[in-house]
Amino acid sequence: MLTRHRGNFQWDDVAVLAYKEEGTHFKNITRQVLFDGLADVPCQLRYFEIEPAGYSTLEQHQHVHLVIILRGQGDVLLGQHIHHVAQNDVIAIPPHTWHQFQATGEDSLGFLCLVNQERDKALRPTEDELHLLCEIPKIAAFIRS
Amino acid sequence: MLTRHRGNFQWDDVAVLAYKEEGTHFKNITRQVLFDGLADVPCQLRYFEIEPAGYSTLEQHQHVHLVIILRGQGDVLLGQHIHHVAQNDVIAIPPHTWHQFQATGEDSLGFLCLVNQERDKALRPTEDELHLLCEIPKIAAFIRS
Repeated sequence: MLTRHRGNFQWDDVAVLAYKEEGTHFKNITRQVLFDGLADVPCQLRYFEIEPAGYSTLEQHQHVHLVIILRGQGDVLLGQHIHHVAQNDVIAIPPHTWHQFQATGEDSLGFLCLVNQERDKALRPTEDELHLLCEIPKIAAFIRS
Repeated sequence: MLTRHRGNFQWDDVAVLAYKEEGTHFKNITRQVLFDGLADVPCQLRYFEIEPAGYSTLEQHQHVHLVIILRGQGDVLLGQHIHHVAQNDVIAIPPHTWHQFQATGEDSLGFLCLVNQERDKALRPTEDELHLLCEIPKIAAFIRS
């Protein structure tokens, strides 16, 4: 019932995993699963850590992400807006909203991300969708894919 | 979609509320609601802060609590065990498990607590249940009610 933090954003008996099994659409991220559902909270709580200059996949999906920043700072694309985020900021990513996290500081960007245990697979943009996103210059300058 | 931390464990446009409407079975706690459910995450995320020497209600219920410590340190009763907890520890409180948080450090104990939006009301121990709990000396010494 207690998952103890043993320092430096690692927890007892929690494996540090790859962010995703494969791909070149993300950089320098790890994943740890801190909670995997119980009774009326059918959710999975993951801790992701992005090293400086790393980024998550640019993606969207039906399921919601509830994100809490635990360390560092970064920028996040949410739909058509880019926000700077830092420790203790809370971000709710609604269904079908393009999003990407990037670590922008000298420290890693670490955040909790809560999702439903049953969820759809993330989608990356098609060529057409990518062109449409890149019509907004600040987004074109931001995204890594 | 972004709930920005403005420092000192307060967030933009988030009210600092009383822990519960009334009662003398808790001490020096506040509550802030950071997320109140969206699509497939029908959960409420609250931030509770217990001042030094304060404590939450000794209670149990059907619904699950998923707790993440954000600041300070404290002790928590979970069933028949007392654990010391500190920043970034994760605690899953199963259904029908007696629990109570106490701030034990010089700093406040602050933690996130995720619950289902629809949940049963917490129950405090009856006199009989309290006597039973207090048969374990370390629990008798711990609980505040």
